[in-house]
Amino acid sequence: MTMLALASRYGKIRRRTELLCASLVPEDHVPQPVIEVSPPKWHLGHTAWFFETLVLVRFSPGYRVFNDAYSYIFNSYYESQGARIARDLRGSLSRPTVAETLAYRHHVDRAMLALLEATLSPEATELVELGLQHEEQHQELLLTDIKYILGMNPLTPVYESVVDGVVDTFSEHAGEDLSLRREWIDFAGGLCEIGHGGIGFAFDNEKPRHAVLVPATQVRSALVTNAEYQAFILDGGYRRFEFWHAEGWDWLQHHSDRLPLYWRTSRAGSTDLEHYTLAGQRALLPEAPVTHVSFFEASAFCCWAGWRLPTEFEWEAVAPKFLWGQRWEWTGSAYLPYPGFKTYLGAASEYNGKFMLNQMVLRGASFATPVGHARSTYRNFFPPHMRWQYTGIRPARDLQASQV
Amino acid sequence: MTMLALASRYGKIRRRTELLCASLVPEDHVPQPVIEVSPPKWHLGHTAWFFETLVLVRFSPGYRVFNDAYSYIFNSYYESQGARIARDLRGSLSRPTVAETLAYRHHVDRAMLALLEATLSPEATELVELGLQHEEQHQELLLTDIKYILGMNPLTPVYESVVDGVVDTFSEHAGEDLSLRREWIDFAGGLCEIGHGGIGFAFDNEKPRHAVLVPATQVRSALVTNAEYQAFILDGGYRRFEFWHAEGWDWLQHHSDRLPLYWRTSRAGSTDLEHYTLAGQRALLPEAPVTHVSFFEASAFCCWAGWRLPTEFEWEAVAPKFLWGQRWEWTGSAYLPYPGFKTYLGAASEYNGKFMLNQMVLRGASFATPVGHARSTYRNFFPPHMRWQYTGIRPARDLQASQV
Amino acid sequence: MTMLALASRYGKIRRRTELLCASLVPEDHVPQPVIEVSPPKWHLGHTAWFFETLVLVRFSPGYRVFNDAYSYIFNSYYESQGARIARDLRGSLSRPTVAETLAYRHHVDRAMLALLEATLSPEATELVELGLQHEEQHQELLLTDIKYILGMNPLTPVYESVVDGVVDTFSEHAGEDLSLRREWIDFAGGLCEIGHGGIGFAFDNEKPRHAVLVPATQVRSALVTNAEYQAFILDGGYRRFEFWHAEGWDWLQHHSDRLPLYWRTSRAGSTDLEHYTLAGQRALLPEAPVTHVSFFEASAFCCWAGWRLPTEFEWEAVAPKFLWGQRWEWTGSAYLPYPGFKTYLGAASEYNGKFMLNQMVLRGASFATPVGHARSTYRNFFPPHMRWQYTGIRPARDLQASQV
Amino acid sequence: MTMLALASRYGKIRRRTELLCASLVPEDHVPQPVIEVSPPKWHLGHTAWFFETLVLVRFSPGYRVFNDAYSYIFNSYYESQGARIARDLRGSLSRPTVAETLAYRHHVDRAMLALLEATLSPEATELVELGLQHEEQHQELLLTDIKYILGMNPLTPVYESVVDGVVDTFSEHAGEDLSLRREWIDFAGGLCEIGHGGIGFAFDNEKPRHAVLVPATQVRSALVTNAEYQAFILDGGYRRFEFWHAEGWDWLQHHSDRLPLYWRTSRAGSTDLEHYTLAGQRALLPEAPVTHVSFFEASAFCCWAGWRLPTEFEWEAVAPKFLWGQRWEWTGSAYLPYPGFKTYLGAASEYNGKFMLNQMVLRGASFATPVGHARSTYRNFFPPHMRWQYTGIRPARDLQASQV
Repeated sequence: MTMLALASRYGKIRRRTELLCASLVPEDHVPQPVIEVSPPKWHLGHTAWFFETLVLVRFSPGYRVFNDAYSYIFNSYYESQGARIARDLRGSLSRPTVAETLAYRHHVDRAMLALLEATLSPEATELVELGLQHEEQHQELLLTDIKYILGMNPLTPVYESVVDGVVDTFSEHAGEDLSLRREWIDFAGGLCEIGHGGIGFAFDNEKPRHAVLVPATQVRSALVTNAEYQAFILDGGYRRFEFWHAEGWDWLQHHSDRLPLYWRTSRAGSTDLEHYTLAGQRALLPEAPVTHVSFFEASAFCCWAGWRLPTEFEWEAVAPKFLWGQRWEWTGSAYLPYPGFKTYLGAASEYNGKFMLNQMVLRGASFATPVGHARSTYRNFFPPHMRWQYTGIRPARDLQASQV
Repeated sequence: MTMLALASRYGKIRRRTELLCASLVPEDHVPQPVIEVSPPKWHLGHTAWFFETLVLVRFSPGYRVFNDAYSYIFNSYYESQGARIARDLRGSLSRPTVAETLAYRHHVDRAMLALLEATLSPEATELVELGLQHEEQHQELLLTDIKYILGMNPLTPVYESVVDGVVDTFSEHAGEDLSLRREWIDFAGGLCEIGHGGIGFAFDNEKPRHAVLVPATQVRSALVTNAEYQAFILDGGYRRFEFWHAEGWDWLQHHSDRLPLYWRTSRAGSTDLEHYTLAGQRALLPEAPVTHVSFFEASAFCCWAGWRLPTEFEWEAVAPKFLWGQRWEWTGSAYLPYPGFKTYLGAASEYNGKFMLNQMVLRGASFATPVGHARSTYRNFFPPHMRWQYTGIRPARDLQASQV
Repeated sequence: MTMLALASRYGKIRRRTELLCASLVPEDHVPQPVIEVSPPKWHLGHTAWFFETLVLVRFSPGYRVFNDAYSYIFNSYYESQGARIARDLRGSLSRPTVAETLAYRHHVDRAMLALLEATLSPEATELVELGLQHEEQHQELLLTDIKYILGMNPLTPVYESVVDGVVDTFSEHAGEDLSLRREWIDFAGGLCEIGHGGIGFAFDNEKPRHAVLVPATQVRSALVTNAEYQAFILDGGYRRFEFWHAEGWDWLQHHSDRLPLYWRTSRAGSTDLEHYTLAGQRALLPEAPVTHVSFFEASAFCCWAGWRLPTEFEWEAVAPKFLWGQRWEWTGSAYLPYPGFKTYLGAASEYNGKFMLNQMVLRGASFATPVGHARSTYRNFFPPHMRWQYTGIRPARDLQASQV
Repeated sequence: MTMLALASRYGKIRRRTELLCASLVPEDHVPQPVIEVSPPKWHLGHTAWFFETLVLVRFSPGYRVFNDAYSYIFNSYYESQGARIARDLRGSLSRPTVAETLAYRHHVDRAMLALLEATLSPEATELVELGLQHEEQHQELLLTDIKYILGMNPLTPVYESVVDGVVDTFSEHAGEDLSLRREWIDFAGGLCEIGHGGIGFAFDNEKPRHAVLVPATQVRSALVTNAEYQAFILDGGYRRFEFWHAEGWDWLQHHSDRLPLYWRTSRAGSTDLEHYTLAGQRALLPEAPVTHVSFFEASAFCCWAGWRLPTEFEWEAVAPKFLWGQRWEWTGSAYLPYPGFKTYLGAASEYNGKFMLNQMVLRGASFATPVGHARSTYRNFFPPHMRWQYTGIRPARDLQASQV
């Protein structure tokens, strides 16, 4: 990619982040209702801090840090970058204001665009690209965090998207094909090349590409639907321990609702279910993929149905044969390094590797994932109880001897 | 008070609440950094809810509740008024916006002013007055909560007051006489009438007026100064268990700073102390009253000095002889009902009585107390570890036999 | 008291402590099911440590501490005596064994009896007396802690008393007059002398004797019965917020049973209530005093009945007119120092004073209180949620104008 | 195995469990100092309950459950077996006594031995064998739990083993070869059969045997020694974030000692290190394998040294080439089901499968593992912070291209 192309890409991605917040009022930028949901304002600042800290400070001679306190406020988890605000206090900060945060972004943008006018070293170029990929990850987090902030509010406000200056309500199901056939895709098994090996960007955690022996298996062509998940609920799925991990069962005892996140019974005392979407409170579509389930729930559902979650290797091996990208799909794989895994060098070494413990891998993407950001080798990861991302369930099952 | 005067008073007090927030940006209205610090937006809405719920719904035929969800959001602790948002989630709400909250206030104001054009029953009039007193209490809380939100921010922004349209920085020491003589005022003791018994407003917890036998005592004319408190620190006051209640000592083990709230060493590595004030980070004035200390600290300081805190009865009995109103002064009295205490009737019965447990009484007032709100019979109360109010220390000591 | 009499008294009290544990198996001496319930073994050791530390080390030249580790293990809360095991770890210690702990006791006893053969200084004599009173306090705690350890056990074993070598089950109601008349005792009010002023032992917290103006009041001759308390339950007492302190209501939300401690419905699905006593699971006696209620419950009951708890001053003033000693009676008074209160000197200064915060005073005594230990000036104290002591409720009410 | 042989094996294993507790005093059987350390008494009862519940109740007509309350007390985590005591309350139970618990064991033993006189169905035989394997697992837990109970005690008592009636102190290093050469064992990689496939007992989690592609790697012949681990400490290993998982670093901030469990500096203020062993407080042997480290520490050590932990597949593939059995060796593998994994049927289905989440696999065995219980396919598992088992570190590293 030429510097010019990189500069253009930089501008587009950076603008999109701000557009995602364009319909919010300043108040929406501030809360952190649970620790994993960061204030939108914090996302705006943190993504600027990333370029400032990892690129400008190192590669732009004479660059002046915008504000030392911002470095303290917008550092997420980089121990090498010194002290930072406790993660659970991000929502306690009214300042910098949204306007000041945007000014910070633009200060960084000016310096970045100046830097991108010259030819950068490969190392610097890679860090710029990493910064853009990082920004795209936060674009998805922005949407899920905004959804949580609005969705937990008793007023359940509607989020409006701003695209090309047009304000619109935001359909989470836009372009979603609800008539996908639910079929089992046979996979004969064998040695498969897993991970990213080609050209183009990939995160360190997708490498090195390596062979894995994948067993014969069946993976379903379509995700689990709301109707299927309701059948699980009606059959006592949340009350029958035998489907649950011990830790999931324990988690259940502390959650009274026993529904996917954002599901609610409609007000009329009926058993009709609604869910909150970015377009507001809506009736559940029976044929739409179930969303906002934890790994615990995904696994329990599959156990009830006589199925299981695919491993991330099965998923990647079979992915060419099914449509994906609707939901982040929980896999049965723990998030661990690939054989020969090396972290990035320098500050970016903390990007992925240190989180490879007690988390499960999700594959796929969601409607909230920026276009061009998804890859079949992509490894998303979350602790098993989290469900505010657009998560879903794709079943797998062992290929029966008789079926081979 | 005539209805006209009451309406005028209503308008003035309600406007002042909004003026206190006039210099804030919308973002400042949202956070709740600790559970006891409510978002300014919440104070704006809750004080409107109080009039809506206790006055309009009952006494204004045809009044329409502004928004049922607001009733859920802005109810503080009134069990009789049904479900409400968990107290620690107040800072999670971006909506209603500041503008919507002000619209709520003005909706209530219009209905209240219409109501106040007619002659109200004594019961309704009393509830209006209670609402105004309640609003004034929240005016003080607004200032202390704003101070906390700004003061815990790494950017330590300055709060600006808006008075008569003039924006100014806000001196916490404005009009504070730092040359008060520190003398012991003798009090011979005897039967004293304690509590509110005259005309004019007083809370239920100040009544009934009743006789208390107050021992002979000495109370100091002036509050403990920063310099005096520093001497306590330098003498190891925070490291010597013998001055502390067991619960206070335990509390200390979980607080690393061992300074009054908002005190910090200035940056140059020196031992010079600064403190955050609403006018920003400032040098400590040695002769100013120490502020933002917990009951634990106030009591430990007195113990170190060979003194003690006065009881609330000593305080009230001797109050005519000293200047008070600079700080809320911790007393050695637990917050308990006076003999013959009766709560208000109806919803207002939850106003004070149910909190008469595990709290200590503070007497006096502070610069943040609205003019006209203070009384020498006023009983403020907080749990012993809290210190974000403008608290201070007035020493007392037993009158020695030889001194009698 | 002569030294000989003191030595005899020492021997008797010390032996009684061991007798209280004589029917326990070694296993019963170990657990600490909740933080406030200490293992019986710990009581045995701690009361020896008290004499060793406060008396022998100071007044017995050549005395050798039995075991330095025991000083660490058996120190309760004396900061002046250095590091000690965290309170919640007392039940983690299998060693010293019961036999080793008894050996420790006897080592201390030998040295104490040798010391008591000579004439002691007044200071030493006072500390010996304090140690004996302390031991008697722990005798009551031993019974309540044993009751908790046995009563929370699914096997609900029976505790057997050993008196004069005779093993017997232990009736908590032995000698309890269940036919006490429930009458209101008028008290005209006035200046009353409160606190201990005469000869004989009293704790520092009962002094100095001082005048208090006590209002006219009525105090009931008999404690609240189980039947009366059941009427409160049946009338929704645990479900109606209006009777409860805010803190009590909050406490209730975390307690599912909504019965006094040790009450259980009998197994047959009936609504018959049983309670665990030291003699095992028994039917509730309707006319027996309700026991094992928290301050929250005592206060809520009175509120429901239209009564209130007496203050500790009312209690002490009226005590000559009623029978007391069946239960520790919650008062409406917070535990605070009397005017002119002085702590003991030296290590004993931590005995009472540092706990004068966030606790309520109980007056009276219980069947578990050693004979001769009770006094009408005695001030027992516990935080308002605790109820594993033999607590009860004596109602008071304001003397109506018409009744005067 | 004939029934006669099974009965003999049953008798031997059951007796050994009791022998492990033979030198304990009753008090040692009671405490539960941390949630994962169960009281020895509980182990004695739980292993009897296992046979009673899974074998006798189903296969022994006319068997009478010893005591319904015991079923409540000694059920560990079997939801199918109904309510049970909260795990963290096991140490609160003084009853049943040790003697009563042994009586329970002998009641079960008599019924089991009677049952084993007849020919059992394959299903029953398998459950008996599972019960014996289960009992052996608890024998190891008994030793580690006894070590914790004694080792956390300020008196650090010595545990004595009783073998053939001979009481002796217990050397954790007995028969340990401290002169093992530390060499790298090359493994060329390739398809390996992993898991148990032959005859003889194996747990469900070791099956089915299946092929795994294992990369070329090097595994060290000897475990990491105390001396090596001390070098890590001296080089700041506990203070340098770059070696740690984020979750491990967070865990560190809440542990002040920053040493393996049971390590302590010897008293003389020197930097000499000691550790508690079952034989008491001892000097560290530099050449002995480091023990009682968490996964966090094992992983951080390897990262510091430029190595890594082997996966469980590497471990099993290379195991024939090194000596193992000294310590449970942390692997880099999460505890997950093998492809085609099936849980046991019935109540035993809860044995292993429901714990396959957020735990790491350990391979090998320790001196505390019963003879005959270890297998190279054995999968032990614990959460990454736990370290009271006899855990150790075996390093691996990628086979460098130049080394192939």
